[in-house]
Amino acid sequence: MISSPYLLYLGAATDPLAVKTARGVAEWRPETCIGQLRLPGCEVTLGLEDVAIDEAVRRGARTLIIGEANAGGVLSAAAIPVIVAALDAGLDVASGLHQRLGDVPAVREAAERNGRRLFDVRQPPADLVVGKGVPRAGMRLLTVGTDCSMGKMYTSLALEKALRARGVAADFRATGQTGILIAGDGIAVDAVVADFISGATERVSPARHDGGWDIIEGQGSLFHPSYAGVSLGLLHGAQPDALVLCHEPGRPHMRGVPGHPVPGLKETLERNLEAARLTNPDVVAVGVAFNTSAYSDAEAARLCAEASAELNLPCQDPVRMGVDQIVDKLLSCFEASPSLAAAGR
Amino acid sequence: MISSPYLLYLGAATDPLAVKTARGVAEWRPETCIGQLRLPGCEVTLGLEDVAIDEAVRRGARTLIIGEANAGGVLSAAAIPVIVAALDAGLDVASGLHQRLGDVPAVREAAERNGRRLFDVRQPPADLVVGKGVPRAGMRLLTVGTDCSMGKMYTSLALEKALRARGVAADFRATGQTGILIAGDGIAVDAVVADFISGATERVSPARHDGGWDIIEGQGSLFHPSYAGVSLGLLHGAQPDALVLCHEPGRPHMRGVPGHPVPGLKETLERNLEAARLTNPDVVAVGVAFNTSAYSDAEAARLCAEASAELNLPCQDPVRMGVDQIVDKLLSCFEASPSLAAAGR
Repeated sequence: MISSPYLLYLGAATDPLAVKTARGVAEWRPETCIGQLRLPGCEVTLGLEDVAIDEAVRRGARTLIIGEANAGGVLSAAAIPVIVAALDAGLDVASGLHQRLGDVPAVREAAERNGRRLFDVRQPPADLVVGKGVPRAGMRLLTVGTDCSMGKMYTSLALEKALRARGVAADFRATGQTGILIAGDGIAVDAVVADFISGATERVSPARHDGGWDIIEGQGSLFHPSYAGVSLGLLHGAQPDALVLCHEPGRPHMRGVPGHPVPGLKETLERNLEAARLTNPDVVAVGVAFNTSAYSDAEAARLCAEASAELNLPCQDPVRMGVDQIVDKLLSCFEASPSLAAAGR
Repeated sequence: MISSPYLLYLGAATDPLAVKTARGVAEWRPETCIGQLRLPGCEVTLGLEDVAIDEAVRRGARTLIIGEANAGGVLSAAAIPVIVAALDAGLDVASGLHQRLGDVPAVREAAERNGRRLFDVRQPPADLVVGKGVPRAGMRLLTVGTDCSMGKMYTSLALEKALRARGVAADFRATGQTGILIAGDGIAVDAVVADFISGATERVSPARHDGGWDIIEGQGSLFHPSYAGVSLGLLHGAQPDALVLCHEPGRPHMRGVPGHPVPGLKETLERNLEAARLTNPDVVAVGVAFNTSAYSDAEAARLCAEASAELNLPCQDPVRMGVDQIVDKLLSCFEASPSLAAAGR
């Protein structure tokens, strides 16, 4: 578990995409963000106060988040003295980069010298085991998609927020690097040894007994020729009671693989439900989440209405419309569930 | 590529299961086996001549295969001086154990001292990439199963042998440790990082232009709650033209997960065909391979006949009956294929 609050390091980033990870943390966990740390030349901002390391420590910061990602996934040379200074000032450091923090000698030595922790959130735990498919206590919702990068993380976080707003215990369970930095915990399921995909997912969402929901971040798509194995293992390990299907209307082909068309909503939902029944025969779909950022309000409303009619499920764009209809459907499907009843709902 | 011929090390094994890997090599590649090397107390044999290291080298051996597997997957203390002696005598060493050969200092030093190679066949290549799903030249058959350990490797090797006996170019493509030691090449697909399952499989079976067949060893089952992700990624990466379904009648539940029933043949085949169409829309099923070792001849014949009638496909036990009917069906399905025609068939 990564300790908050955080200081978000943006380096000398000039491209908003390079600080995507940090932006996710600032957007979804603003209360955990003391401020941002930028180097000269940085042209992006998260809208947070610029705070130096010592000042961040005085204000209670516990962890420096490396929020700058370059193409190679390695630490920039300029980041290393900043990280060392943060460790010397008493902060832990967390990174979603491919390169491990501890592989940089100066960083490893500074962590050891100060007794601080280094979190490489892409690095899976060393003690994973294979999934067992044994039903476990608690309610689980999984976001699935027609393709990668369809808004599964965003939708999951929006569902967590909306459920909490209604007084329902709900916890986002992270399976990707940005999600892990937002949640402070989780496993990058695409980075585990293939045998452990479902086992890692079982660990991300252990038994819960409070009547609340785990909202598990999905990855990839059963229809993606590169990543479907990850998606299927994740689906089996999640043992979801409920699925929400995420989609971006108008995408020309599956991400990264021209020539592979994006599957239909109905087919995607049926295939996911069919596969999910292996570990939870009672799984149901409760909604569809669209990313309609390329469309006007009127077009977005029409697209959602069409999908809703086709699938007989609420369909909303979480960014423009929220997820209240999906939450309504979820709660109505499970209002008689023993675990929710036990929680006094 | 592991160099043959081999000397097979059985250590002091007392349980035939402990030398399963070596037995596979001796059974399927007898022409590559110079002999076996046993320590005092060894109670099993592969039926090969007992040959000392120096004698094996004189007879042309190139690699010592560590054919003894204990429960922990680590090298026994007694194996280490034997391995060092083999390296000093000029042999390479190959192992399917979890523990890496090079992690034993004496072994690593002996390999370096002698300029010899160490093969840890469970260890994936470091330079894997994600699968792309782009169609590649050549014909491919994949064995799939209702469950793990249904005879997929055996069936694949039997198909290779039967095709070659008919003059059809065919190559077994290994995806598990025993298969890799038999083939001398391959990737343990369950040991790769999850993102690379389909990419590893694409690499195991690259484009081929001789009109022959790659017979790809399947792993796990789409219906196994622990391993289905591996099976799906392997299926997508294999881009099979033909599937052979492997099954063991009478198995009480999915391996290692009591309470999970073994799926039906029809359902398994349909689900595999449906998923395989993502990367090869023209995939067909050409046969069923049963492991009927628990049954009498008459019962085995009846079970195969029933399955054959149900699926309208040939069904044989490769051990008892061979695979000729399956090969007939395969060749009849593809006799008009351009690549086979180009090969003069």
